[in-house]
Amino acid sequence: MLVALCGGVGAARLLAGVDDVVEPAAITAVVNTGDDLTLHGLHISPDIDTIIYTLAGMANPQTGWGIEGETWKTMEELKTLGGTTWFQLGDRDLATHLYRTQRLAEGATLSQVTAELASKRGLEMTVVPMSDDQVRTRVRVSGQEVPFQDYFVRLRHDVAVEAIRFDGAETSRPAPGVLEALAGAELIVCCPSNPLVSIGPILAVPGIKELVASRRDAVVAVSPIVAGAALKGPAARLLGDLGHEISVVGVARLYADWVGTLIIDEADASLRGAVEQVGMRCLVTDTVMSSPERARRLAEVVCGARR
Amino acid sequence: MLVALCGGVGAARLLAGVDDVVEPAAITAVVNTGDDLTLHGLHISPDIDTIIYTLAGMANPQTGWGIEGETWKTMEELKTLGGTTWFQLGDRDLATHLYRTQRLAEGATLSQVTAELASKRGLEMTVVPMSDDQVRTRVRVSGQEVPFQDYFVRLRHDVAVEAIRFDGAETSRPAPGVLEALAGAELIVCCPSNPLVSIGPILAVPGIKELVASRRDAVVAVSPIVAGAALKGPAARLLGDLGHEISVVGVARLYADWVGTLIIDEADASLRGAVEQVGMRCLVTDTVMSSPERARRLAEVVCGARR
Repeated sequence: MLVALCGGVGAARLLAGVDDVVEPAAITAVVNTGDDLTLHGLHISPDIDTIIYTLAGMANPQTGWGIEGETWKTMEELKTLGGTTWFQLGDRDLATHLYRTQRLAEGATLSQVTAELASKRGLEMTVVPMSDDQVRTRVRVSGQEVPFQDYFVRLRHDVAVEAIRFDGAETSRPAPGVLEALAGAELIVCCPSNPLVSIGPILAVPGIKELVASRRDAVVAVSPIVAGAALKGPAARLLGDLGHEISVVGVARLYADWVGTLIIDEADASLRGAVEQVGMRCLVTDTVMSSPERARRLAEVVCGARR
Repeated sequence: MLVALCGGVGAARLLAGVDDVVEPAAITAVVNTGDDLTLHGLHISPDIDTIIYTLAGMANPQTGWGIEGETWKTMEELKTLGGTTWFQLGDRDLATHLYRTQRLAEGATLSQVTAELASKRGLEMTVVPMSDDQVRTRVRVSGQEVPFQDYFVRLRHDVAVEAIRFDGAETSRPAPGVLEALAGAELIVCCPSNPLVSIGPILAVPGIKELVASRRDAVVAVSPIVAGAALKGPAARLLGDLGHEISVVGVARLYADWVGTLIIDEADASLRGAVEQVGMRCLVTDTVMSSPERARRLAEVVCGARR
């Protein structure tokens, strides 16, 4: 059994590779919901959707979010009404949010709805939110806290971040099955997602970090930082803004308590020794998943990397 | 000043005619919200939307609801997900519900949102919900109460109705400006809408029926029943199910307390005396609004009909 801790695009690509290497039914993806939002009354789970769309082969590879070949009738009309359109929702994508919101209103949990959506999209792996409780990542920018998507999408993460907080995390519980899956996993994969705002919220759910740390030898992380930069998103800038080194060594320090093995890119081979000095194993390979083949090759390394 | 009490399609067509006859800025449409619903987390106001779409010239004339030339991408996708699709929402129409739901979540009232939508669609008349408070029409069918749209759309109103109840009406208040508009109106028009489930909920909001009744001479109603049938919808069957005569006389009896003048169709000319015996004036004209011209001619009669 393999459990993956997941954010959005990077996790989705690695999972698609792992899906080729491991029996899909043996995989559990535990997904960040700290960047979920309610907009237009709809419950939107960006990371869950990116993962399901990617694994279903329907993701838009250009954007990293949404559905390929999407149409935008609703958003175009909403624009003429002067509505809120900075968070773009395609017409087919909207169906996912309508479905989720209606099922939640009917009393289903987010895990149940996520399992339904994964199943309807033909996935065989288990996709589970980190928690069925509401945890919301909030980002302090210019002295003011804003919801994560305000920072990430509306402000295009082009601002200095002063602090991050996971609202609701303290009283949240891991979704059903998450602790059991982590306890029984042969391999726990920390995907190449943002350490602070994708992996961070998952670890903030009480019980998860402690359990993962107790299984440190089974935990393999892929660095989201390659050659001092993030392949996508604000990970590099966020690390710097919040006082961390923007390098695989910075990632290693953040993960030292609970990750046994860190996989870094060949571009960072010279930092292998520095990572090992932090106290973890370090493997060097090609981590840039610019094609499904490269993602599969990385997945093979990850699946063979358990300490 | 003219105030119209409105349900959906029949009201929308008459209002479009009145809009040609009277200065639009002098018209206030008070619209039934008893058949509003929350679905997929979205606040949907079917009668308000039918009126705004019709007056904006964008309504689908075939269905009586929704937007002409609509696309259905979201609903098609929702169907593949096994979601709730019995209440069809077109892609452009969805923008209206997203806008309304988001604005309500931001703290706007339903009147404010309705005014915004009417303005964005270029309307000059005032469109106002009967109340900003939640009133929900519930229909008893086979011993069980169901929400109005379950009866109207999902069951296609093809079932016997045992009772109607306006949940929340007792504690609701008329929307801002409604009582003032009714008190000051030269003419109060009761549109050819369903007496029981379109006009009924409006009158159930405390204060409205009393005020309208006190202005009975100024109230002109158009019968929604023509030759013992409804032109659209379940008005005829509902009247019969609930023990009312399915005729203009049945309508006259329902409206006797508060309507001074009832306009009936030429097809019902022989019942004029019977209507007058109920205690109201009765005018006979062509009430079938099968074209904008016929709607305008009816509007002329209505606007000249004040007792």
